[in-house]
Parts: sequence; C-alpha cells; structure tokens
Amino acid sequence: MKAAVLHAPNQPMTIEDVVLEKPKRREVLVRTAAAGLCHSDLHFIDGLYPYPLPAVLGHEAAGVVEAVGEDVTYLKPGDHVISCLSMFCGHCSFCLSGHLSLCGDPEVKPPAGKAKRLGWKGQHMNQFLNLSAFAEQMVVHENALVKVREDMPLDLAALIGCGVITGYGAVARTAKVEPGSTVAVFGAGGIGLSTINAAAIAGAGRIIVVDKDPFKFDLARAFGATDIVDANLGDTVKRIRDMTNGGVHYSFECIGLKATAEQSFSCLRPGGAATIIGMIPVGTKIELHGVDFLAERKIQGSMMGSNQFRTDMPRLIDFHMQGKLHLKEMVSSRIKLEQINEGFATLKTGGVARNVIMFDH
Amino acid sequence: MKAAVLHAPNQPMTIEDVVLEKPKRREVLVRTAAAGLCHSDLHFIDGLYPYPLPAVLGHEAAGVVEAVGEDVTYLKPGDHVISCLSMFCGHCSFCLSGHLSLCGDPEVKPPAGKAKRLGWKGQHMNQFLNLSAFAEQMVVHENALVKVREDMPLDLAALIGCGVITGYGAVARTAKVEPGSTVAVFGAGGIGLSTINAAAIAGAGRIIVVDKDPFKFDLARAFGATDIVDANLGDTVKRIRDMTNGGVHYSFECIGLKATAEQSFSCLRPGGAATIIGMIPVGTKIELHGVDFLAERKIQGSMMGSNQFRTDMPRLIDFHMQGKLHLKEMVSSRIKLEQINEGFATLKTGGVARNVIMFDH
Repeated sequence: MKAAVLHAPNQPMTIEDVVLEKPKRREVLVRTAAAGLCHSDLHFIDGLYPYPLPAVLGHEAAGVVEAVGEDVTYLKPGDHVISCLSMFCGHCSFCLSGHLSLCGDPEVKPPAGKAKRLGWKGQHMNQFLNLSAFAEQMVVHENALVKVREDMPLDLAALIGCGVITGYGAVARTAKVEPGSTVAVFGAGGIGLSTINAAAIAGAGRIIVVDKDPFKFDLARAFGATDIVDANLGDTVKRIRDMTNGGVHYSFECIGLKATAEQSFSCLRPGGAATIIGMIPVGTKIELHGVDFLAERKIQGSMMGSNQFRTDMPRLIDFHMQGKLHLKEMVSSRIKLEQINEGFATLKTGGVARNVIMFDH
Repeated sequence: MKAAVLHAPNQPMTIEDVVLEKPKRREVLVRTAAAGLCHSDLHFIDGLYPYPLPAVLGHEAAGVVEAVGEDVTYLKPGDHVISCLSMFCGHCSFCLSGHLSLCGDPEVKPPAGKAKRLGWKGQHMNQFLNLSAFAEQMVVHENALVKVREDMPLDLAALIGCGVITGYGAVARTAKVEPGSTVAVFGAGGIGLSTINAAAIAGAGRIIVVDKDPFKFDLARAFGATDIVDANLGDTVKRIRDMTNGGVHYSFECIGLKATAEQSFSCLRPGGAATIIGMIPVGTKIELHGVDFLAERKIQGSMMGSNQFRTDMPRLIDFHMQGKLHLKEMVSSRIKLEQINEGFATLKTGGVARNVIMFDH
C-alpha cells in the first residue's frame, strides 16, 4: 500500500510502498477514507518531540473496516469507524476511572517504535502512535476504534478523531464548562475552533478568542466566538480582564506556546481554571506568578480532551447532524496523499484550519 | 487594651495601648483567649507581602463574645468562637457556590487599611485582615466567627482558625483526597502537620512528608505520615517517584517556596493534582515543564483551604474530641503577648510547629 514516510525531521515526506501485516487477534484492518493534517504531526515533523524514524505519521482518520482479527467482537467488515490515539486497555486504574487517555497499557498501546505492523524494503517501519493514518490502510487495536453512523461523511468524521474530540473534551470533560460562564480561547486553529464550538454547545455565556491571524476571526465567530482579541494589538491579558470584570472562569490554550500558556493562567478570575491543550515543546518551561495561586486559580493539562471516545464521538456526530457542531467549515482543503508536504506547508504559514487527505480506493 | 503593634517590616513589635471601637450593627466584640503565631504573619513581618502599617497583626484566634452590635443574631455574649479571615458576605457568586474564601465583599471584608476599628495616640491603626488577633480584644464582623462547643479548650480552638482549617480544607475541599490515594506533603510546619493529619482523616493510603528539619520527622509521623523524605539528601522528586511507582495522586506545598512548589508538580503521577497552600512571595514565579501538562497534571491554589468554616470548624473540633485530629502536639509553647517577638524568632529558626499567645483576663 501507499504511505507517506517521514525519514528525518524537517525533511519532506516521501510516498512509499509500505507493507502492512495482517490483523492479529484483537487487531482490525481499516481502509483509510480520510486523514486530517494535525498540528501535532507538525510538531514531530519539526523535531520538537522526538520519535523513532522512519515512520508513517497521521493519527486523525476515519475509514471502513476491511477485516478483523480472530478475537475481535466489537467490529465487523463494512463498519464505519473513527480511529483515536487514546486506545484503552479497559482494565487499568486510569481506564476504570474514566481517564482512558492516560492509559499506558503496553499491550494495547505499545511504546514508540514497538508496534510491529509496518515494513518497508524488508525493514521495520515505525507506526506513529500505533495508528499511522497517512496510509491507504491501517492495522490497529480494536480499542483504538469507535463505530459510527454510516450516514456520517467520513472526511468530516476523520476530524473528530483528534482535533474535535480534543477541543470538545477539554471543555466538556477536563474543565467541565458550565452554562453562562465566561471562556477565553487562545488560538483558533483546528483545536481552537473545536474548543470554541464546544464552549458554545456547553452554553458558555461569553467566548473570547485570541489569535493573530485575521483570517481566523470570522471563522472563530462562525464557530461561536462572541468576542475577538487581536493579539497583534498587545496586552491580551489586560484586555480580557477589562472585558470580563477581572478575568474569565475558564481559559484554553490551543497552540502550545509558552507565552499563551502563561497568558491563559493570568487572564483567569479568582477560582478560574486554565486548561493546556497545546503541545508545549519538550524543554520549554512556563512561568507563573506564585501569588496568582492564592486566589485559587488552577492550571491543568488535557490529554486528548480527557475523552471517553466511544461515548463522546457518537455524541459529536449527533451534534453535527443537529447543526450544532461545525465540521464542513473547518476543512480548508481536501488533498491527495501525494500533496501532503504542501498541505503541511500551508498549515505552517497560517490561514488554514484543517487540510484533509482523501484516499481513492 | 494591650496589643502588639508592627511599625515597620523587620522591626520588633511593641506592646501598646490601643483603642478599640464599640461593635456596630453586625459587629461583635470578642475577648481574645488565645492567638497562634502563624507563618503568614511572618511573611508580613518580613515585608514579603506589602501591608499598610502600623498594624496589629494576628489572625488565628479563639475567644469569648463580650458584646454584639444591634443587628447581630448569630451570636450572644458568652458564646465561644473561633475567628476566620474568610469572612463572607453570603450573597455573592463566590459565597453562593461554596467558595467563601474568595469573597471580596468590601462591606464584610474591607480592603487593607480601610477598617476603622482601631486607634492609637489619636491616629488610625490598621486592623490586619480585619481581625488583629494580637490584642486582648477584637471587634470583627459576625461573619468572621463561628460558634463552637464550650468543652473545647480555646487555645487549641485558636489553631483551627487558620493553620488547621487551611491544611484540612486543602485536603478535604480543594483537592478532595480520596481513601487509599497517595499524598506528598512539602513542609511539616503548622500547615503541613494539619495537611498530614487531614490526609490521614481522609483515609490516604500513603502520606509522604518532605522536610529538612529532623525535629519535624517524628512530629510528622505522629500526625499520620507514613514515609519521610529528608530534603537534605537531595533529589526529592526522584525519590518520591521511585517510592510510588511514578508519582503521587496528590501533593501539597505548605511552605511557600519556588523550589518546593515546582517539586510538588513534578512528583505527580499522570492525572495528579498539586495544591499550593504556602504563600509564595510577591514577584516570585514558579517554572513548570510544559510537557508535564500532557499527562493531565494539575496545579491549583488553595486559599484558606477553600473552607466553609462554619461547617468545617465544628467538624474539626469533633474530630479532635474523637482523637482523630492532633492539636496538643502542635503547640510548641504557650507564651504571653509580651513574648511575641521571641515567639516569631523561634518560628523562624525552626524546630517549632506553633507558638500560642495566651491572654490573661
């Protein structure tokens, strides 16, 4: 099968013929229908997070089940599925307390470089996050998949697999935003727009969006933003505090930058909670004023939106069908696998929410 | 009446004749029975936090009601009371969501320097935190007081007014420690010991205490510590992680230092929560590794233990009567008001949990 291979950081990926193993016991073979280009892939392409290479990246995908291993009972060929990197064992203390995005069971979620499902020129090829979605097919653990309604277009379903669940879960599960509360969202990319949309679904009274890219302002409004703070104009924190009589109840950092992580904490009202969704580069420290803790401010990380994805993803599809969750508006362009490098280049220069690879089968 | 007056930071307090206004409308006149010397007072004496001076410090006290203002219905002369700096208005969004330590109502809690209850040599004298407990009497808002059982000794009751409620509330209300969980406590002073004791009451499975002062180790064990980490021996975080198979569920910073605040975050397991109780000096920033947020770690402040003190303090007294809450062991020495400077000097040099001023009336 064809797959996009990253050989080294900061180099273009190449399209290669990659060998995929047959699904074993609890594994499932999925024909990839669509895969989103996510900013997190870009962090690995840029070398900000280490990963064993060569590897096939991609982790935000939807497709159709082609075959299942002998022990799989949850799925059958023909089922429509979304993949999620929060594969869960279902028996550890994290899974059994609802925190399945923290599950680290090595059977279900082998550490980086350990999954033996891909080969290339007779050698081992790394399966990124045990998914490797930038490929025509995937072999994954059945607990990396959720079955979804067949009337849901698979290109839009793919977006739910990472960006949308991450933003939605951060709002609904990590922070538990309640109706009428004030929210600030830093960054209106794919995750940010999902966060804005989730805050709107959760009934937030005011949704203030901070970004530097004027292209995003109208997009943010379309997803539910009530106020825009143009970060080019300076002193973001003061402006948010002034707008909200002292700070917001909830803030969300959706970029992964030191400066915006610090701002997300500083713009809170007493008792407020900042949620870090963005991937802050390894080695970067964020600096917080100790006195701000006195007024019971909180800052917390959200991993994949603290999701319970087999519950959450079907709900998100229902929200979409009801017109509450915007997905079409998030797709900036649909591209072919061969255009993957250009796709990431435009993601980097801005002006883009989501590029989606469509596979022809 | 006699009161200890702080004229300037880093100077000894002097005992002066201070004039106290009569209780107005919702105010209460309390004859101070005992007042604890708290590390937070020391922060103000050392000038780490600004405060208008001269002022009568002291904020951890118990006593007996002498007179009440015309609108007071909650209390009557003769009632035994504990004072708390978390005076509440009872009608703002903080109070009505249970977060009364965040109430900032200026009627009930006038900003620093605004309360007009004390005078000295014909001039205004500042009432510290609207309490000023280092004085033979106090005039305070009725919502700064809780009525307590008369069989409770007032010197031990005083400790509950700040240190004990702060540690207990951080465990029971801010962090909501659950039975069987692992806990790390940084610092075994008055707050730290209360935190340890509260973790034991809450059923924590393991309570690891970090301190540099060998005098505190046995004391910590008496309060419920199961393990001691001597901070003099280095690499505290690694040792806690090794002891707990990757980190604790809950940590509590009870000192107010940059280094221990950072350690309290670093020693968490994925999904764990650090609670900052100590007062980190104004201007000090704490630095946290951004990647640690990926695994859903959380760091939050606790103000006076997020208390609901009219509910919590009577419970704490019941715990004491049942033998679950250690208070006698916390008192290092009972002193007279005139010994206040020596009392703070020994608090600073270590080897002391709590010195308590006993008033002779």
